[in-house]
Amino acid sequence: MSLTEKLSFECDYTTGAHPEILKKLTETNIESLPGYGADRYCESAKEKIRNLCNNDVEVFFLVGGTQTNSIVIASLLNSYEGVIAADTGHVSVHEAGAIEYTGHKVLTLPHHDGKIMPTELSAYMDNFYNDENHEHMVFPGMVYISHPTENGTLYTKNELKQISDICRMYDIPLFLDGARLGYGLMSRNTDVTLPDIAELCDVFYIGGTKVGALCGEVVVFKKSATPKHFMTTVKQHGALLAKGRLLGVQFDTLFTDNLYFEISRHAIEMAEFLKTVLKEKGYHFAWESFTNQQFVILENKQMEKLKEKVRFSFWEKYDNSHTVVRFATSWSTKKEDIEKLKTIL
Amino acid sequence: MSLTEKLSFECDYTTGAHPEILKKLTETNIESLPGYGADRYCESAKEKIRNLCNNDVEVFFLVGGTQTNSIVIASLLNSYEGVIAADTGHVSVHEAGAIEYTGHKVLTLPHHDGKIMPTELSAYMDNFYNDENHEHMVFPGMVYISHPTENGTLYTKNELKQISDICRMYDIPLFLDGARLGYGLMSRNTDVTLPDIAELCDVFYIGGTKVGALCGEVVVFKKSATPKHFMTTVKQHGALLAKGRLLGVQFDTLFTDNLYFEISRHAIEMAEFLKTVLKEKGYHFAWESFTNQQFVILENKQMEKLKEKVRFSFWEKYDNSHTVVRFATSWSTKKEDIEKLKTIL
Amino acid sequence: MSLTEKLSFECDYTTGAHPEILKKLTETNIESLPGYGADRYCESAKEKIRNLCNNDVEVFFLVGGTQTNSIVIASLLNSYEGVIAADTGHVSVHEAGAIEYTGHKVLTLPHHDGKIMPTELSAYMDNFYNDENHEHMVFPGMVYISHPTENGTLYTKNELKQISDICRMYDIPLFLDGARLGYGLMSRNTDVTLPDIAELCDVFYIGGTKVGALCGEVVVFKKSATPKHFMTTVKQHGALLAKGRLLGVQFDTLFTDNLYFEISRHAIEMAEFLKTVLKEKGYHFAWESFTNQQFVILENKQMEKLKEKVRFSFWEKYDNSHTVVRFATSWSTKKEDIEKLKTIL
Amino acid sequence: MSLTEKLSFECDYTTGAHPEILKKLTETNIESLPGYGADRYCESAKEKIRNLCNNDVEVFFLVGGTQTNSIVIASLLNSYEGVIAADTGHVSVHEAGAIEYTGHKVLTLPHHDGKIMPTELSAYMDNFYNDENHEHMVFPGMVYISHPTENGTLYTKNELKQISDICRMYDIPLFLDGARLGYGLMSRNTDVTLPDIAELCDVFYIGGTKVGALCGEVVVFKKSATPKHFMTTVKQHGALLAKGRLLGVQFDTLFTDNLYFEISRHAIEMAEFLKTVLKEKGYHFAWESFTNQQFVILENKQMEKLKEKVRFSFWEKYDNSHTVVRFATSWSTKKEDIEKLKTIL
Repeated sequence: MSLTEKLSFECDYTTGAHPEILKKLTETNIESLPGYGADRYCESAKEKIRNLCNNDVEVFFLVGGTQTNSIVIASLLNSYEGVIAADTGHVSVHEAGAIEYTGHKVLTLPHHDGKIMPTELSAYMDNFYNDENHEHMVFPGMVYISHPTENGTLYTKNELKQISDICRMYDIPLFLDGARLGYGLMSRNTDVTLPDIAELCDVFYIGGTKVGALCGEVVVFKKSATPKHFMTTVKQHGALLAKGRLLGVQFDTLFTDNLYFEISRHAIEMAEFLKTVLKEKGYHFAWESFTNQQFVILENKQMEKLKEKVRFSFWEKYDNSHTVVRFATSWSTKKEDIEKLKTIL
Repeated sequence: MSLTEKLSFECDYTTGAHPEILKKLTETNIESLPGYGADRYCESAKEKIRNLCNNDVEVFFLVGGTQTNSIVIASLLNSYEGVIAADTGHVSVHEAGAIEYTGHKVLTLPHHDGKIMPTELSAYMDNFYNDENHEHMVFPGMVYISHPTENGTLYTKNELKQISDICRMYDIPLFLDGARLGYGLMSRNTDVTLPDIAELCDVFYIGGTKVGALCGEVVVFKKSATPKHFMTTVKQHGALLAKGRLLGVQFDTLFTDNLYFEISRHAIEMAEFLKTVLKEKGYHFAWESFTNQQFVILENKQMEKLKEKVRFSFWEKYDNSHTVVRFATSWSTKKEDIEKLKTIL
Repeated sequence: MSLTEKLSFECDYTTGAHPEILKKLTETNIESLPGYGADRYCESAKEKIRNLCNNDVEVFFLVGGTQTNSIVIASLLNSYEGVIAADTGHVSVHEAGAIEYTGHKVLTLPHHDGKIMPTELSAYMDNFYNDENHEHMVFPGMVYISHPTENGTLYTKNELKQISDICRMYDIPLFLDGARLGYGLMSRNTDVTLPDIAELCDVFYIGGTKVGALCGEVVVFKKSATPKHFMTTVKQHGALLAKGRLLGVQFDTLFTDNLYFEISRHAIEMAEFLKTVLKEKGYHFAWESFTNQQFVILENKQMEKLKEKVRFSFWEKYDNSHTVVRFATSWSTKKEDIEKLKTIL
Repeated sequence: MSLTEKLSFECDYTTGAHPEILKKLTETNIESLPGYGADRYCESAKEKIRNLCNNDVEVFFLVGGTQTNSIVIASLLNSYEGVIAADTGHVSVHEAGAIEYTGHKVLTLPHHDGKIMPTELSAYMDNFYNDENHEHMVFPGMVYISHPTENGTLYTKNELKQISDICRMYDIPLFLDGARLGYGLMSRNTDVTLPDIAELCDVFYIGGTKVGALCGEVVVFKKSATPKHFMTTVKQHGALLAKGRLLGVQFDTLFTDNLYFEISRHAIEMAEFLKTVLKEKGYHFAWESFTNQQFVILENKQMEKLKEKVRFSFWEKYDNSHTVVRFATSWSTKKEDIEKLKTIL
């Protein structure tokens, strides 16, 4: 980084892939492999992930997050059903209508620091079936949660269990968007493990793009919930890579020697250090996050000044003179950058 | 390649990326870049491609071929319109209904070695508008051709011009699927150049996946034909990469120092060599191809025997005792492999 | 009505068509007429409606309300756009996801007795275009309002004008759902006329099903806003009647000798009488309505008792011991039924 | 009919409804009935139809033919599936892409006088599953046939049985489009009964629009094949009538005292008389039809002359000097009109 370059905390996908991934892509490059995910690296990666999940699951690789959300949701809903999500959920706001494009409504619940509340979910389901006009309405056919949420928060195991129980009571699948799952699992403040998720959800994904890969997300279906001919559905959505190895090699690398978790732990450590630095400097947080995204309240003039040397993201207006901004860490965040930041703050 | 490994001619995407691409991905890996295609490598690649096209065009990057076909077609058709294509066209047969998934019918014309004929296109348009019931039918709203076709054949400049003229007469866009465009442009038997295509088509794509990239296709719209908010449409289809650099760096490399064309030329040379070898050995071709795919008629027992040492693709049944199979070359095909093949045939 | 039959106020579509309509259907029944709306009755009805609108408009007939909403909205939105509506709007809640089925999101604004507020609409548009991430979000491509609203309330001419101005500033169409338009136009408390609506909206519909027809809605597009090949779009949605005369004859009858307005006026008179009776009896209204639907707060036990003799609709819970219910009048409501109701209350 | 009016044989929906239907609509008009098909006339009609089918079926009412085809097909297919149909099938050609609008491809088989051949269907299924690339293709998920076909021809019971057996072998539903089913059942040349159809198909519809109703089609699902929440799907497609009585009363009338079959028989008698007249006059038929549509080869000049006094439909070009035209009869065809025609021919 040149001396004049800004410090970069705006998101967790500003740098490329973890170097191990590029190394492995280069090493395996000349091998002649079958296309469309039938190669040995895909198979090896899937095997490792199935073992980590410790449940009877099926594993697929997709390229990006919005793609994963829209394909998974469309493949599991009946045409007369919609998906329940927090009103701040990625599928509700920032996917350009990808869910609706597949013909399904996003049914929103109010968020609580990014999370939905089991009691409110339960009430929604109850009210729906008690409404004598419900046959004229969109059936709630699935629940979507993100973990960590868009706000960096995490469900407790107990909350997950309650949501899962409600879904099972109504016989609808629970889908967990894990675009940043590594950061959730490595958080110092969570009691949720990967096998817990594999047990409590019907489908979830383990994000690669935001956790050290060039691209790629791992979709994990409970075996009993796997849609028929899912590969054909993936193809129909234009999401099947000819050179499936690009995903296979990446995830095989990430799930060798705990790399995925090491990357995530590093980002968490950097986020905790950043939090400490910010707190020491007297900054306030919009809400508490134990993952790799930190949400800080800045006074507007201070924010403009800071922008000259640091990149961070606008999150939302706090009041007329303050703004909530997001700082994110990743596999490539360096301790020295946070130390530099400290001198600037 | 171990001595026991089979020779690989089954398709043009069995190996990874051209080594220059991996080198460049590695070199640029640590740079902090903006997401979603707003990085300097995307911009540089676009500039190079615009210059090569020598027309007023807009350039976008997508990940794969079916994705590109379905997004481009959906973004240009009105809801009451369908796309005309050869009955052997990729969109007609091998995309798992991706076009129909976006709500549009593929209207087929009979193919002639993979190509549609201008006279038959013209007659189709004529008949449609003369049919007094045409308001109860799908309007032909676009023409799709592949170049090279799925059969490895090429349109002449004159044929392209005629098809383009018909499209303009009816005011519908002409879309050229260039999944293997490099091989078409570098064929020894073509009078069609990239600027010709940019001039005669309203939109086309320059394939990366099958021409040396890990993934990626370059969509080129005539400026006047570019759909409004195309990036939002790309997002809505789940096709917008967060780390857009993956495409930017690859295409910036491919369009530096003519690499894309050198790769393609190499594959053509290998295909011509392969053709010579096969002809010398007395093999017959199902039809003549001047691109990187060669279609050979094999007697069935001979085919089974050959399969033990060589990988090629089943194409179609020829008669009860013969089969048409496909041999393909690519950036990674080695002359020595064809020489080995010669000893096996 | 037998002595034991309940009084019917549950909605405005419990009886068949106004007798004049059945008479005319019977009189014209044996005539041999062209199909798909090309008959003389459709033409005559359209001419009458165009004249009433006093603007340069195009008129189409559809069968039902949800059908009309979904076809009109789908025919005017680009794929990356959604429709803004009140959160109580029919398209938001009670159409089983018909809008989403066509691929579009319903973007909701909070309702105020069923209406959206111009200031809130304006703020929504503003915020959208100021959001730096708006290209990742659904573009607001249309505004949907109902008049009368689902709550029986009416926009003032000034409110309509303000909403229309905002739409024109952003160059998006304004669509008015007039499922009960007759009751709006004949209300004693409105300054909005049919030509006003034709002037201020880009498209609207004049409801037939709920205003005395067996079925049918009149779609009126500003000529400049009429979608190309709308009839083909109607066919594609399965909404084109072979015997288009069924709609032509009905609307030709309704728009002869002011029948549509007479029917509506009668329902309004009955609603006003009903309102007076209820007020005299000490009932309270959830909000004030000047159209054919009245929303009354009933104590729950009283409600159960009343149900034994009168049919009305559940609207919503008011508090733990009270419920809001709806009484509706129509062309067939008889003064004597309200007088009977008076004796029961 | 005035002396100057042309004789009308152009289709079977030029006149209104059978007079009994209008009479019953008028008699029941003032009754206050629940909406959306929950009225006693719908229930009574359904009961009569269930009894006629003599199988365990569920009955629904829809408004028109294209609507019925698109809703039934969409409700039964998985998203990765398409529907097999004759290339002349209504869904293939004349529904403005209504099937594709719901996301599904129509997979065509060559027609034989409008019919598909069991052997060709069987070969199609076989080839599909033997194709090693079939996961990249649209799965054949349903078979659509029309009976009578668009060409007026009929399947034999044996053919139906064979097609049904193939469908059951592959576990995909068989759907019979009976837009003109009455004419098929009353043909003098059929061995197929309504219970046969209910037994051999998974879903079919009994056409009303073309058999004496103002509008309306009866959808009959095998109970085990009935889609969940079909009414919500109907609503989502904009096809649920608020005044469902319009369909209930019509079908209750048509299925009282055999009226549906009497109407159909009358049309068949008129068609047979017409056939005799045409044959006597030396006309040739394009193919033989035993239903209410007759396809006659006319010399072009003769055709132009005849057009001055008679209305018929263009069907297709026969050769440079001849045209195939269609004559259709219906409930309202009068013997005297055919006698008049005889004097004109």
